Amino acid sequence: MNERYDIAIIGSGPAGLSAALNAKIRKKKFVIFGNKELTQKLSKAHEINNYLGFYRKSGKEIQEEFNNHLKEMDINITEEKINNVYAMGDYFALMVNEKIYEATTVILATGVQYGKLFEGEERLLGKGVGYCATCDAPLYKGKVVTIIAYNKHEEAEANFIATIAAKVYYIPMYNEEVEVDSSIEIINDVPIEIIGEDKVRNLKLKNSKIDTDGIFILRDSISPGQLVPGLKIVKNHIEVDRLMKTNINGCFAAGDVVGKPYQYIKSAGEGNIAALSAVSYIDYISKK
Amino acid sequence: MNERYDIAIIGSGPAGLSAALNAKIRKKKFVIFGNKELTQKLSKAHEINNYLGFYRKSGKEIQEEFNNHLKEMDINITEEKINNVYAMGDYFALMVNEKIYEATTVILATGVQYGKLFEGEERLLGKGVGYCATCDAPLYKGKVVTIIAYNKHEEAEANFIATIAAKVYYIPMYNEEVEVDSSIEIINDVPIEIIGEDKVRNLKLKNSKIDTDGIFILRDSISPGQLVPGLKIVKNHIEVDRLMKTNINGCFAAGDVVGKPYQYIKSAGEGNIAALSAVSYIDYISKK
Repeated sequence: MNERYDIAIIGSGPAGLSAALNAKIRKKKFVIFGNKELTQKLSKAHEINNYLGFYRKSGKEIQEEFNNHLKEMDINITEEKINNVYAMGDYFALMVNEKIYEATTVILATGVQYGKLFEGEERLLGKGVGYCATCDAPLYKGKVVTIIAYNKHEEAEANFIATIAAKVYYIPMYNEEVEVDSSIEIINDVPIEIIGEDKVRNLKLKNSKIDTDGIFILRDSISPGQLVPGLKIVKNHIEVDRLMKTNINGCFAAGDVVGKPYQYIKSAGEGNIAALSAVSYIDYISKK
Repeated sequence: MNERYDIAIIGSGPAGLSAALNAKIRKKKFVIFGNKELTQKLSKAHEINNYLGFYRKSGKEIQEEFNNHLKEMDINITEEKINNVYAMGDYFALMVNEKIYEATTVILATGVQYGKLFEGEERLLGKGVGYCATCDAPLYKGKVVTIIAYNKHEEAEANFIATIAAKVYYIPMYNEEVEVDSSIEIINDVPIEIIGEDKVRNLKLKNSKIDTDGIFILRDSISPGQLVPGLKIVKNHIEVDRLMKTNINGCFAAGDVVGKPYQYIKSAGEGNIAALSAVSYIDYISKK
């Protein structure tokens, strides 16, 4: 049996970190998924003056303060990417490539870096379009697979799928140098539209078009509606009440993912609320 | 004519301060009313570990960081107590003892330190019970006035009213030594109930009872429903939406006053949202 966490926090921006502090202080068994660099957005911020208590500090410096805070509280970030979260009734199953985490509550703090969907993406999801190459690799034995990757980390996924598929196209959406297996064809072009009726046939790019059986789109984060089936989304944001509850019992959300303004201290404040709401929920159901 | 502010912020806890930072950064003309000591609650906190970025710091130390931040941004707190806020249509009138401030928007960040009402207080408000001794002093010429004071600052109010009323009772609800005019009778007892049919007759205390024509209750902050007539209150908190809007156009609220959890970073996050909502509102109506 999997070990069961009280709280699983997805995202390591200010909302996720703030939630983690409160989970820790309230002595809950929790896990926080994200990136040890915390958040790209923060590290790139020039100067932040409206985070009460910090002034004339760069995003990098604030990031360092956050990291010191985590270290001081003995909080570690689990560097795994959750591909799906399923509400199982009295717990949630969080799917990572090769394993499953279980948690009584989930706090979604995934930010708004998931970008726009490609034309055809939503319609062909599950019909050749996927977000987890490793998960679905067996389906593409001897077939043609295209990977649209937003992060250099994804090169490992491409290399893995190249051992199974007949042909792999790799489209890097990042600036770093691409280092993938020599069997993989790198395409430096911009994807426009995914084409197909009942299943994926082609990918149209700005300057070319390729035939492909499957397309994996590996973004840094997945849009919340795709991450958690059944989650209520309103105007591209997760709908929450003032206690950061979503429409799914035990599922809370905080930060940019729940709406504007996109501000660090707003996110941190909401992470705090979400964690305390999760704690109340856990205490409530444990008494039932 | 009074000068007109874009934003008037009432309260100098984390919500009010965070709102002020954003008003400043957005280059709005604003005033923040409160206390140069910021907030008693914060200064008394022992150790705070869930304000993301600060750890193992006492409330006093965090208060100092907040003060440094204000100084760095050249934000000054106006030490005046607002007795009433009236929605005048396209602006708000904020009543201070001897003057009126005008502002296009108001952000209420007054906290929850207003405490319980005394029995009879609400029923006899305006019928002998008041919150601003200086305002109503002329009504009590030659009469008996009782002042229930929660802060040593209020001694000046008592001294002033003693020059008008025939008799002043002063009930200190604080621990510091009382230094009032010798004509004032100090009563060291606990008020229980305000008695009277159409108007105040007596004040019942734990160990005594006094006859009085008027009773001024001078708390550090006034309950929001009394501060802003017409404001929608639900379960003792101001009702707001996720953008911190109240039921009154142009009136926003943030921090403990809008509900639990009572947490510094939650308040700071809400102050940020309230200020940005006020800015949007101002920009919107200025274009109409």
